[in-house]
Amino acid sequence: MNQGDLATTIITMEKKALEKLNKGNPSGYLEIYANDITYFDPFQEKRFDGFENVKTFYESMQGTIYIEHYEMIDPVVQTVGEAAILSYNLVSHIGNDIFREKCTEVYSQQPDKQWRIIHSHWSLITSPSEK
Amino acid sequence: MNQGDLATTIITMEKKALEKLNKGNPSGYLEIYANDITYFDPFQEKRFDGFENVKTFYESMQGTIYIEHYEMIDPVVQTVGEAAILSYNLVSHIGNDIFREKCTEVYSQQPDKQWRIIHSHWSLITSPSEK
Repeated sequence: MNQGDLATTIITMEKKALEKLNKGNPSGYLEIYANDITYFDPFQEKRFDGFENVKTFYESMQGTIYIEHYEMIDPVVQTVGEAAILSYNLVSHIGNDIFREKCTEVYSQQPDKQWRIIHSHWSLITSPSEK
Repeated sequence: MNQGDLATTIITMEKKALEKLNKGNPSGYLEIYANDITYFDPFQEKRFDGFENVKTFYESMQGTIYIEHYEMIDPVVQTVGEAAILSYNLVSHIGNDIFREKCTEVYSQQPDKQWRIIHSHWSLITSPSEK
């Protein structure tokens, strides 16, 4: 697969998982998280290590999220052999509220050729007054 | 190099660059940033793409940082071929102030065998009152 096709594949996977999560359903991400995922949540100080810990955390949030629409801004995919690093800005709209985030997802091609996320880092964008 | 040795190498590189930056000197990071680095700064919404853009930003901060001491907490290095993903919590002390951050650094082994950072994501840990 050439670089452009791989970038399209990765971005499509991410959007599919994100659109499910935006309706309160974490299953899209859980299907593409690797067993050895490490995960930084925007609201949690400590990293979650390993699929089971991330799954427990996500399932505790099930049904609590409802994003009406979103924009994935400036996605870039960098590739290093069997790793693909996706980074982007995310804007999520909930009624009149807007959440702005930065996102890094490290995908890795597994032995079964499926791409899965082995590291995830979400962070909230703080406004100047919060700096 | 086995996984344990590589993890030690990566963490040692990171600490060396970080300790320079803590004294206001970005040169340690600039020496190990790859040409195609993408960089999420904790205080900036937009990603900086490419070494020259990151360098200009870092040089604008030169001499403005003085961290008296720091703790790198729970560093983990995950490897995928020629990529090594380091993630950790960072606590930085400036007088009586404490800054808490999360950090992701994606290192990649370059054609000259040097490990360099191709993606960096720093984020501030927001206290519950800021959520």
